[in-house]
Amino acid sequence: MRDVSVLGIGSTAFGRHAGTPIEALAATAAAQALEDAGVERRELGALYLGNFVSGPLNGQEVLAGMVADRLGLPNIPCTKVEGACASGGIAFRHAMLAIASGQCDAALVVGAETMTHASNAEVTAALNCAMDNRSDGASGLTFPGLFGMAWRLHAARYGTTRRQVSAVVRKNKANGLRNPLAQMGAELTDEVIEQSQMICDPLQLYDCCPVSDGAAALVLVARDRAKGSGRPAVDVLASAQTRGAARIAGHADLCSFEATVSAARRAYEMAGIAPGDVDLVELHDCFSIAEVVDSEDLGLIPRGQGAAWAAEGRTAVGGDIPINPSGGLLAKGHPVGATGVSQIYEAVLQLRGQHPNQVKDAEIALTHNLGGTGVVCTVSVLRRGDAA
Amino acid sequence: MRDVSVLGIGSTAFGRHAGTPIEALAATAAAQALEDAGVERRELGALYLGNFVSGPLNGQEVLAGMVADRLGLPNIPCTKVEGACASGGIAFRHAMLAIASGQCDAALVVGAETMTHASNAEVTAALNCAMDNRSDGASGLTFPGLFGMAWRLHAARYGTTRRQVSAVVRKNKANGLRNPLAQMGAELTDEVIEQSQMICDPLQLYDCCPVSDGAAALVLVARDRAKGSGRPAVDVLASAQTRGAARIAGHADLCSFEATVSAARRAYEMAGIAPGDVDLVELHDCFSIAEVVDSEDLGLIPRGQGAAWAAEGRTAVGGDIPINPSGGLLAKGHPVGATGVSQIYEAVLQLRGQHPNQVKDAEIALTHNLGGTGVVCTVSVLRRGDAA
Repeated sequence: MRDVSVLGIGSTAFGRHAGTPIEALAATAAAQALEDAGVERRELGALYLGNFVSGPLNGQEVLAGMVADRLGLPNIPCTKVEGACASGGIAFRHAMLAIASGQCDAALVVGAETMTHASNAEVTAALNCAMDNRSDGASGLTFPGLFGMAWRLHAARYGTTRRQVSAVVRKNKANGLRNPLAQMGAELTDEVIEQSQMICDPLQLYDCCPVSDGAAALVLVARDRAKGSGRPAVDVLASAQTRGAARIAGHADLCSFEATVSAARRAYEMAGIAPGDVDLVELHDCFSIAEVVDSEDLGLIPRGQGAAWAAEGRTAVGGDIPINPSGGLLAKGHPVGATGVSQIYEAVLQLRGQHPNQVKDAEIALTHNLGGTGVVCTVSVLRRGDAA
Repeated sequence: MRDVSVLGIGSTAFGRHAGTPIEALAATAAAQALEDAGVERRELGALYLGNFVSGPLNGQEVLAGMVADRLGLPNIPCTKVEGACASGGIAFRHAMLAIASGQCDAALVVGAETMTHASNAEVTAALNCAMDNRSDGASGLTFPGLFGMAWRLHAARYGTTRRQVSAVVRKNKANGLRNPLAQMGAELTDEVIEQSQMICDPLQLYDCCPVSDGAAALVLVARDRAKGSGRPAVDVLASAQTRGAARIAGHADLCSFEATVSAARRAYEMAGIAPGDVDLVELHDCFSIAEVVDSEDLGLIPRGQGAAWAAEGRTAVGGDIPINPSGGLLAKGHPVGATGVSQIYEAVLQLRGQHPNQVKDAEIALTHNLGGTGVVCTVSVLRRGDAA
């Protein structure tokens, strides 16, 4: 297997893009990434596109081919992959594998979703496509319901408080204010968070990521190709994809997702690093409590202390382990299929030293993308390249 | 890249499976394929699942992980791929690549779709997700409309007659009668075909494939693993995936799909064979005229003579080039995401000499899976293995 680097990145702002077709958002991000990489379209050997619910919400599939057509790409394999909220991370991994295995020297990764044009009921129904609808869905479960249960258990077991979890929200919303692509950055007080609308007890409004439109894109190349480019490359050290139980009754513990634990273990092993080597993390904070659980599952924070670390400022930029300096899903937004690609976009900016909310001397970044009720997960590890 | 073989196959009957969840159909076919291959679940290193419209029609995504969970597979990467009607062929190619590139020694391919529970309007809307809905869809195009235009052009240019095209229908429906998995085998006369309901002039009822439920599955292994198995293996000589124009205005000619032409060219080159070496073909006859166009695009029949060859019996089992001995989409059925996998299932049975409608001494088979309005295509070439 050959070494792979990220040479170009692109992203639309996340938020409302009403009236802009999903394929146009995707093509905008992709064209940016190609320009940023200085890679010609004819060099590309594959396109992987992550998307989750364009079928139900837009009545539009075959997006990989449509985006390629719009971009004027050559006649290359163009593939949509889907794994609910982890679709973007899966797309990244497949482009990496296409280059690592020698199928091609350059590949395009795109993640895209449009959701804000749909009603709340339509969005909820579409998101519920990510769970087993003959068991969990039929019992009335929603994703806020799942993470509400995780919070209750975390609180009962570890003594995690509402005020501690508010620190996660405050941090990510504040980080989002520094990210020009973020949909909902804000300077919030604990009081505002804790007086916001109850969504699914104990999750309140600001504990939940918004409904978003957006797209992100990456150009990956063989590392040798990156070296000759004179551009700041970022090395891909690992990309792991795992599976977990498909129904919540299959999880041994609602305070942990086995797919995250195993993906992290594999990614650390592939990358030859330990959790302590990670300088910053972009992880799947679809809800505030998800960040707490994820950070523990990834081995970055001791079990049960995720919220306490946030409250102590240890997960802020400048802290022990900066988590979601981009604002994360809570503040940057969560256009589902785009999220996993966007996380890598943000990590690459950090490793280039170009991020608007820069982690000082960042050398190694980890990204974490979780799908469904923990049924699929990707974890990737990136390192600042020599040319940077 | 390592050589890859198909060691196990499974398929449900195609037709109506009302009340059976899509993941149950998929798991049934997959369990058959594993049993047939004599491969243990723990040997598998990847699952690729082809599906098109489970989101819109079932409200159910993350099928790859759900099927893996139901089958009790180990913690392996499980990925849904989508390319409209070519989703199954894409899944096959990715499993092949996973083994060829050394990522794993065995992989599972599943294709699945359920459609018959939905209304005609819902099915038409779901199928239209495969076209560009801001141009073609907005202009009122449907897939019968596209292939109706292709027929008119073929007739005007080459003199193709209704009676010649009826021969395609008669052949495939008769082939379907010999296939116990086929949804709609029948012994039809030209008169019955030509007096059937007009669907989209000149396409009549029997020119159109039915709406179907079904699943098919394959177990792929490294060829070395197959050799030691004592089971009849089939070698994968090629699997090519290409793209074409995303809108019909982008096609230079409605009597030809560039994605098919280029996929065939690549597949022949990879396999080191010429069209004349092919002993049988399973191709994408979503409509009778599609078989005519496809057979010409694949280089199997001279341009313009596809229907004439059918009328002369040259595409029947025992003819110059047997096309769709399974009954094809017209008679076996077209559960969209399953079709590309099912074609390989049928080809493998032929190359093992076990097909209920056997082509004598079949050594090389070609499969062709076309998506959308020609936006994506896969062509694969299989060869009888030494152990068979």
